[in-house]
Amino acid sequence: MKETVLKEDERLDFLIDHRIKIIQNRKGFCFSMDAVLLANFATVRSRDQVCDLGTGTGVIPLILADRTFAKAIYGLEIQEDMADMAQRSVAVNGMNSRIKIKQGDIKNAHQLYGSSRFDVVITNPPYLNQLDGLHSHVSQVAVARHEILCTLDDVLLAASRIVKSRGRVAMVYRPQRLTDIISSMRSVNLEPKKIRFVHPRKKAPANMVLIEAVKDGGMELKVMDPLFVYDDKEYTEEIRGIYFGYGGDIDGKG
Amino acid sequence: MKETVLKEDERLDFLIDHRIKIIQNRKGFCFSMDAVLLANFATVRSRDQVCDLGTGTGVIPLILADRTFAKAIYGLEIQEDMADMAQRSVAVNGMNSRIKIKQGDIKNAHQLYGSSRFDVVITNPPYLNQLDGLHSHVSQVAVARHEILCTLDDVLLAASRIVKSRGRVAMVYRPQRLTDIISSMRSVNLEPKKIRFVHPRKKAPANMVLIEAVKDGGMELKVMDPLFVYDDKEYTEEIRGIYFGYGGDIDGKG
Repeated sequence: MKETVLKEDERLDFLIDHRIKIIQNRKGFCFSMDAVLLANFATVRSRDQVCDLGTGTGVIPLILADRTFAKAIYGLEIQEDMADMAQRSVAVNGMNSRIKIKQGDIKNAHQLYGSSRFDVVITNPPYLNQLDGLHSHVSQVAVARHEILCTLDDVLLAASRIVKSRGRVAMVYRPQRLTDIISSMRSVNLEPKKIRFVHPRKKAPANMVLIEAVKDGGMELKVMDPLFVYDDKEYTEEIRGIYFGYGGDIDGKG
Repeated sequence: MKETVLKEDERLDFLIDHRIKIIQNRKGFCFSMDAVLLANFATVRSRDQVCDLGTGTGVIPLILADRTFAKAIYGLEIQEDMADMAQRSVAVNGMNSRIKIKQGDIKNAHQLYGSSRFDVVITNPPYLNQLDGLHSHVSQVAVARHEILCTLDDVLLAASRIVKSRGRVAMVYRPQRLTDIISSMRSVNLEPKKIRFVHPRKKAPANMVLIEAVKDGGMELKVMDPLFVYDDKEYTEEIRGIYFGYGGDIDGKG
């Protein structure tokens, strides 16, 4: 398989107890825990039409196709090489019938897919302000991490346009910008309904926030129990469950 | 002492390992854990001028006078009988020189105290929407719990007016309304800087949120480690520390 599917500098990784194969570039952007946690956090029901804005390697559609009975999952990615890699990962997993990858700009999502089309929109957008820090010289990484090609407001406006009324928008972001997320969501009629903070350890501040909003939803937010990543030096039971497919263990990692 | 200080239906309670005495009405509103946690959460520095909007029994000024080196702590309370009770509690604790209780409306706070006057404003405002549920027949309780005499927006506007630029506003509220709090704070130039969620138990959703904002502050929010109230059926070590003055234990309760 490696001969036919992988290009130079690419490798094939495994996810969720070996059930999912994913192509990544050794020198480029690789998916991180954010995406895996988001794919597990989002509420996706049977026969839902789902869209992942800024799908990168396609990791979120791949997990959702495995974990849920979503009817179809669309992944939009602006970087051609990433979209191509995601498309090949979909093929390697035999998911062509349920996952559709498209190359294009998040800002045009409503033109590419149509307005009010999806039951669920998922996004793990760049979370660093365009001016924060030094941009990585590897452009795949820079685009995925910084607000170069789109801002938080752009992503939430795009999500609000393509999701149905009463549909859900789930994202992962940095808690430092929670105020921006909430203000920006409200400004495009996305009402936050469910938040979960992720803390590296029990006594540490949160370093990720998972948030789900409902388009045109009523006011009533649930702040879920916190998710801890490490218990001393080991992954917590919950994280192991998420990563290795509920029931697997850390030694079963590929 | 009981003979001279307490009125009918009142009792004298003890707080923080017996260091603080507080008068409460058996049939009226008694302070709750919210106030105690808020008084411990707020950042109060040496020589700060502090104001507690809607001070009720005066529990927050009493704890702050004990816990911090604040220069002066002002408590504003609209209900005459409550303000009177708070004033007598201040006297019983010999705190007349540092705590000043005033009867008046939060909405007039800037006229009563002057604008941009305080380093810190603290508030534990009514958290139920005016139309939520049935109002309690005991009016003290109803006013303290429901948005009858003032709304969340009223309280935050008042706080923003009386706090200095770069001064701090700390409040406790229900996480269900986090989106409202954050939106309302931003609309009066209060930028959330520190949030802590309180969960009754490890696997339960949050039922309180502690939030501190800075007037005219920059964007950058810290979501602290979660505070758990119970560990199985006992208070957690942290809660016991807060309630019983760091080092006391649950059996030392008055």
